[in-house]
Amino acid sequence: MSHLDDILKSRRDTRHFTTDEVPDEVIQKALQAGHWAPSVGLTDATRYYIIKSDAVKSAIKNLFLDYNKKAEELTDNPEQKELYKSLKLEAIEEAPIGLIIAYDRSVLNQFTIGTIGSNEAVKFSSVCAAQNIWLSLTEQGYGMGWVSILNYFQFKKILDLPENIEPLGYFCIGKPATNYGNQPMLQQLHWKQKSETADCKEINEIHQINISDFDLKKETKADPKTDFAALLQEKIDSKTKPLGSLGTLETLAFQMASVFETLNPKIINPNVVVFAADHGIANHGVSDYPQDVTRQMVNNFLNGGAAINVFCKQNNIELSIVDSGVNYDFPTNAKLINAKIAKGTQSFLYASAMSETELQLCFEKGKSIVENIAKTGSNCIGFGEMGIGNTSTASVLMSLLTGLPIEECVGKGTGINDQKLLDKQNILKKALENYSGQTELKQHLAYFGGFEIMQMAGGMLTAFENKMLILVDGFICSVAFLIAFKINPNIKQNAIFCHCSAEKAHLKLLEYLDAKPILNLDLRLGEGTGCAVAFPILKSAEAFLNEMASFESVGISKK
Amino acid sequence: MSHLDDILKSRRDTRHFTTDEVPDEVIQKALQAGHWAPSVGLTDATRYYIIKSDAVKSAIKNLFLDYNKKAEELTDNPEQKELYKSLKLEAIEEAPIGLIIAYDRSVLNQFTIGTIGSNEAVKFSSVCAAQNIWLSLTEQGYGMGWVSILNYFQFKKILDLPENIEPLGYFCIGKPATNYGNQPMLQQLHWKQKSETADCKEINEIHQINISDFDLKKETKADPKTDFAALLQEKIDSKTKPLGSLGTLETLAFQMASVFETLNPKIINPNVVVFAADHGIANHGVSDYPQDVTRQMVNNFLNGGAAINVFCKQNNIELSIVDSGVNYDFPTNAKLINAKIAKGTQSFLYASAMSETELQLCFEKGKSIVENIAKTGSNCIGFGEMGIGNTSTASVLMSLLTGLPIEECVGKGTGINDQKLLDKQNILKKALENYSGQTELKQHLAYFGGFEIMQMAGGMLTAFENKMLILVDGFICSVAFLIAFKINPNIKQNAIFCHCSAEKAHLKLLEYLDAKPILNLDLRLGEGTGCAVAFPILKSAEAFLNEMASFESVGISKK
Ligand SMILES: Cc1cc2nc3c(=O)[nH]c(=O)nc-3n(C[C@H](O)[C@H](O)[C@H](O)COP(=O)(O)O)c2cc1C
Ligand SMILES: Cc1cc2nc3c(=O)[nH]c(=O)nc-3n(C[C@H](O)[C@H](O)[C@H](O)COP(=O)(O)O)c2cc1C
Repeated sequence: MSHLDDILKSRRDTRHFTTDEVPDEVIQKALQAGHWAPSVGLTDATRYYIIKSDAVKSAIKNLFLDYNKKAEELTDNPEQKELYKSLKLEAIEEAPIGLIIAYDRSVLNQFTIGTIGSNEAVKFSSVCAAQNIWLSLTEQGYGMGWVSILNYFQFKKILDLPENIEPLGYFCIGKPATNYGNQPMLQQLHWKQKSETADCKEINEIHQINISDFDLKKETKADPKTDFAALLQEKIDSKTKPLGSLGTLETLAFQMASVFETLNPKIINPNVVVFAADHGIANHGVSDYPQDVTRQMVNNFLNGGAAINVFCKQNNIELSIVDSGVNYDFPTNAKLINAKIAKGTQSFLYASAMSETELQLCFEKGKSIVENIAKTGSNCIGFGEMGIGNTSTASVLMSLLTGLPIEECVGKGTGINDQKLLDKQNILKKALENYSGQTELKQHLAYFGGFEIMQMAGGMLTAFENKMLILVDGFICSVAFLIAFKINPNIKQNAIFCHCSAEKAHLKLLEYLDAKPILNLDLRLGEGTGCAVAFPILKSAEAFLNEMASFESVGISKK
Repeated sequence: MSHLDDILKSRRDTRHFTTDEVPDEVIQKALQAGHWAPSVGLTDATRYYIIKSDAVKSAIKNLFLDYNKKAEELTDNPEQKELYKSLKLEAIEEAPIGLIIAYDRSVLNQFTIGTIGSNEAVKFSSVCAAQNIWLSLTEQGYGMGWVSILNYFQFKKILDLPENIEPLGYFCIGKPATNYGNQPMLQQLHWKQKSETADCKEINEIHQINISDFDLKKETKADPKTDFAALLQEKIDSKTKPLGSLGTLETLAFQMASVFETLNPKIINPNVVVFAADHGIANHGVSDYPQDVTRQMVNNFLNGGAAINVFCKQNNIELSIVDSGVNYDFPTNAKLINAKIAKGTQSFLYASAMSETELQLCFEKGKSIVENIAKTGSNCIGFGEMGIGNTSTASVLMSLLTGLPIEECVGKGTGINDQKLLDKQNILKKALENYSGQTELKQHLAYFGGFEIMQMAGGMLTAFENKMLILVDGFICSVAFLIAFKINPNIKQNAIFCHCSAEKAHLKLLEYLDAKPILNLDLRLGEGTGCAVAFPILKSAEAFLNEMASFESVGISKK
């Protein structure tokens, strides 16, 4: 056993400290060890904060207590809960030194080697530093404990850390009062047994992947069923009401019957699908919300607490949630459809958001998701989305596909102020100016696309092929529709534009598409909420066509 | 400098290897080092895969090349691009051993200590293992290079890794051919200079978080109503959505909670009441339909075949039908509320439509009908009407009460043509000119009124007194509201304008009332259909306010 092995093996996560002070030199030596750690592209983005103040420590302790209480509730096994409660999982107030190891994610705003696969490499670099520090303290006779049971949002708030600084956790440092019998404390207390050896397999074979080139030029011929249309109109006009007096409801009933090819159309198993993904452009300050909100909202969807959950429940709509490419690893969850292309796109400010292969994959995934829903018998599908930064992506795509100047395609998204709106416009303008690629649709979509938007576009095309009603939500969803429409204009026959968003470019886009939205409620939430809220209006159209009496049947004077 | 420091400092990210083999013992010792790393909650989720096969290596190399090409495009700076291209950022094919360090995210499916703040702690644990391995290899005289420039989706695909296994990257291992002059290669090649020391600050103060800026507003403790409004707004703003992003739904929720005087408003026993009556003016050819249609439609309501039946059934709304003064004797029918004043009004072309006593009776009947509905526990009432000729009555009343010229108050009603519209205007103009009575409200209402319109006005005033939501349907119903509003302007607090009718004067009237309608569906049917069709939108407002999660409860970043 080498000297290093000794250190590696005796390093412990320490939650029990003596009252001994920690000399400054010890900390300095440990920070130097951290500084020797590797960092992706030599980004050097690790930042440290030292805490000695009791007031600060006790505020952090409160955050821990709050989350630890929540953690307790995560198990219903009473034995496990008791044991968990008995565990000491931090020493925030006792440890003489508190250390925050954090990374500065603003380094991603510049060109950074090694972050194209995933920008997580930046935070991984800081973890390497954390491990070096842990080892150095061990060698010096000190100990450290990693506390991750914290609400990071509040943690950043109370410490007043800048937006761009992301803490890995809070680290307690001091002189260890025990070595837990030379093993992890959790093992000593029989919480868990560590496996004997590392789990290692050899891989000696390649698995072939085939991704068929998604046909961007597919177009099916529509055949005018004139006879059917006349019969249908007659049926509508025979209802006991003045001609045309149900306005849009009549148009909707006509459309629904045409799409379903029956005079007695019924909506079956309606489904709203929310596609979630992250956007590289979000790193450039185009949104008021941090990127992490995308994954937080996905969890909110899964837990039933978001607006779309409430509206789907209200209106008996099935809800499906898709991870199209959120910058986060979700634990396996039967309720979450995994269609992850990558952990977010690249920023299209300087380079392609995705590769053409990824674009094809998006269309494939969107297609298979909708096919699976069609297989449940559903004939009505609403498209929704979530993705911090995706109004920027949508604006650029709209500008490219409609030819409208970018200024007319940009809005305030989740609600940025005027100055930020101007900044957003300028960034998007610059991105468009920087582009020197081909002007074909495919290249545009790959360069400026978002995973969720492309999956929606692919899904819409498939919904059309399956003779489903396509419910289009707000601005971003309409941009996905615009893409699908460019590929197959017939798709418009199946589309119902559920509402006109408060995002100002949406009205322009609806005009471009010559589409009349059902609702005008100044919604700008996304998530498919417009589809779910408008859905009862569709049901009204269906209901009057199927259930109202006709003049003939009740002998009422027509005109 | 300690022995550990030596290792920490001399560890390099290595991209240049000799052709020397790596003995198995070296790898085993390194994996043991990885195994000694900490893991959150002792999850032990790190997994290793060894690659020696040239075929596998070259397939991975291709993935690298693909993404590296993309990375190149991330910079426009030509010098930077050239330098970047010259950098060797991997040694996938040359390094004798390839190692994949990965984590098994399925551990998150069980209760795992330390992951409540963020489940990233699981992958961080594997990074700690990676760093241990790096150090062990360094001590043993070997080197490692971390390759993260890969499309992880395809990477997992070609290696056929299970869904739940997430690689941190590909690691090249071998005997180093250089130590890059004892510094990071990227520094040696002047790509970047590493900072001299670690970046460390002390934090000795806590930043107070204000729950919201609402606290400031709350300081005005004088008016309990203001307090309630502030609390209510706070509740709305705490929902997991951007501020104001539910547009009109937020306004509706606010109104509903204010009317019901609770932060948790619930609509109980909603009821639509259709008031039907005949109009003397109908004899002057102002409608396309014969007067008898009023009674035919009342029968249709009673038999469940009209539009309002269908929509009330769809949305679980109770429907009540009132005979306010149809020119017909209905057989006794429990489903028909008898509030008949007379068999239709007189024509106001030459004489008063009703007497002042009849007017008084209308208000009383309207009041008792609504009181009875309130007694069922209902707190939400929609007003609808039926009466051939009643757009004419409504137009004249609107003109008198708003001061707008009669031309602006007349529309096509059930759908008359342009000539008939002109005739209608002329008749109504003449009726107004013929009038020589007093200019008091009461006299106007009696002279030009309709039984159903006056009963609605009286009913609305009663609904207000009973703290009910008042759903206002289309043009005629809005004229009834106008009358109630002239009597008690506070009534507006309770009124929800359900839609903007296709009857052109309706828009003008809504503007006069400064009212924003929920729907714009070109409905012009009456019967309360606008109320019934808009009702689910109210339910959506109710649902989001009561059921959505708040930022606090789910720990989502607000802004
Ligand atoms: C990323 C990470 C986060 C952790 N978070 C906590 C924590 O919040 N509370 C705690 O008591 N231990 C935490 N630990 C410590 C682990 O439980 C500990 O490493 C494991 O039980 C093995 O024990 P050892 O480090 O003594 O070998 C964390 C460890 C890691 C690597
Ligand atoms: C998480 C992580 C990912 C990395 N990815 C790459 C990579 O894809 N290609 C590469 O050449 N170097 C990569 N590196 C190596 C860094 O560029 C290197 O650590 C840094 O330049 C400092 O050099 P040193 O490790 O020799 O001290 C990575 C390092 C880390 C910590």
